Amino acid sequence: MLSTSVEIRVRYEETDQMGVVYHGKYFTWFEVARVHLLDRIGFPYSELERKGFLLPVLNCAAKFRAPALFDDRLKVEARITDIPVARISLDYRVSRKDVLLAEGGTTHAFVSKEGKLVRPPKGFLRGVELCMHRQTSSQSSEELT
Amino acid sequence: MLSTSVEIRVRYEETDQMGVVYHGKYFTWFEVARVHLLDRIGFPYSELERKGFLLPVLNCAAKFRAPALFDDRLKVEARITDIPVARISLDYRVSRKDVLLAEGGTTHAFVSKEGKLVRPPKGFLRGVELCMHRQTSSQSSEELT
Amino acid sequence: MLSTSVEIRVRYEETDQMGVVYHGKYFTWFEVARVHLLDRIGFPYSELERKGFLLPVLNCAAKFRAPALFDDRLKVEARITDIPVARISLDYRVSRKDVLLAEGGTTHAFVSKEGKLVRPPKGFLRGVELCMHRQTSSQSSEELT
Amino acid sequence: MLSTSVEIRVRYEETDQMGVVYHGKYFTWFEVARVHLLDRIGFPYSELERKGFLLPVLNCAAKFRAPALFDDRLKVEARITDIPVARISLDYRVSRKDVLLAEGGTTHAFVSKEGKLVRPPKGFLRGVELCMHRQTSSQSSEELT
Repeated sequence: MLSTSVEIRVRYEETDQMGVVYHGKYFTWFEVARVHLLDRIGFPYSELERKGFLLPVLNCAAKFRAPALFDDRLKVEARITDIPVARISLDYRVSRKDVLLAEGGTTHAFVSKEGKLVRPPKGFLRGVELCMHRQTSSQSSEELT
Repeated sequence: MLSTSVEIRVRYEETDQMGVVYHGKYFTWFEVARVHLLDRIGFPYSELERKGFLLPVLNCAAKFRAPALFDDRLKVEARITDIPVARISLDYRVSRKDVLLAEGGTTHAFVSKEGKLVRPPKGFLRGVELCMHRQTSSQSSEELT
Repeated sequence: MLSTSVEIRVRYEETDQMGVVYHGKYFTWFEVARVHLLDRIGFPYSELERKGFLLPVLNCAAKFRAPALFDDRLKVEARITDIPVARISLDYRVSRKDVLLAEGGTTHAFVSKEGKLVRPPKGFLRGVELCMHRQTSSQSSEELT
Repeated sequence: MLSTSVEIRVRYEETDQMGVVYHGKYFTWFEVARVHLLDRIGFPYSELERKGFLLPVLNCAAKFRAPALFDDRLKVEARITDIPVARISLDYRVSRKDVLLAEGGTTHAFVSKEGKLVRPPKGFLRGVELCMHRQTSSQSSEELT
């Protein structure tokens, strides 16, 4: 499966008076990781939109194991879990060093500016597959080392 | 089951450049409805915190059917779905007039300021039951009218 | 001068780990009051946008005297301070009962969807004046009582 | 004067339906740059809080020249403009490559957890001065090259 990760630093604005990050903010971090993943496939989200493709969220979920705190440096991983046809599903993991803080998932539709369901842009599936292949290869070679 | 609803008006800040409300914002609306529900049970969340009870979110999810738009007047319903013991589960519905826009759910733990799982405050379960009873009665009488 | 006020209830999401509302959130409240003021003039912001007028913020400022807290019921007043020509200036006051918590101001341009400066929509100035007149009259009659 | 800069990438969540970043979000970016500046002085904000110092915002302002857009890579500069005594003033500049998008300022008080005005922590002023000195030296040497 195709995955990637970004590092984020927790902003004060993202905390609430419980002294931890507000649960709704994790979906913004998932977005940051998703955007990064689309970059890697060669379909930056800003370009997708310029070409008339939108990716509205059909559903989203998160499960929290331990709180994220102000100033934490977190790793946010995004992974495509379903080969996209008219939809694309991703899951996410947020961790501080080796501690898993939260997991989540989102499903998106490919939609035109007029709001109609459309197929992903040409080459998108191929991009996902190429990246997955490259990733598998590099993982295999890492394992050999 | 115990339910309540609040009206909210969509803020410009809650929209994104897709011209609809950003998915993560629905969890803030769920919070608004949840706080309102706790009021009705007689345990306002601000008082709960003052007494040392926190209600961190263990998991949350939402499913989107139609976009909410700037300036929409929406009804956000919250409903307790599980008789709370150490946890409390709620579900939510967001609608514009008769159109259901989104559904969701959250589960919370009762936690002390030190982060330990605790039982709900005394009288909480009784409050839920009383409200549920009252609600059932008023629904029955409405049906009679 | 033309003024109006709305009541808002502070959301948990708006707090930060200092236990007070994050300063940046006040600008969202100012927006809520501004939208309400435009309603009163008879030019709801959503309609203005539909007619091709945008009101981007040119500058904004706020001064904080006392913190707003979770669950506070606050009054947010908006007031047009400058008769709008190509710009419109407003100021704002946030208070809890008789205590002034914050003051602020924003200036906006009237802009077309193409980003060009434009005159306010026809009747806008007249709407402001009418409302101001009505307000002054009702204040005078209140004073007489 | 002591200054530092961070790079941020605009999040989708930060945009609104005007297709640009919502004005209130700039204050979060200012915070990111401020936190980074405090790191450089050797007084990370998270440590300041742990030692009992809070830095609530007394006032804040921003002036917008050109909109920030989704996915923009922006430079956010923070600069201490006033030698802090009981207060600290900073200003900020947001730019995309050589284009200045926005400027702003914040003033903060040093406050104890009990809400009392306090002097900055020991060594803070010295930290600011040392950093300013180092910066001036490195600028001079750059000019010589």
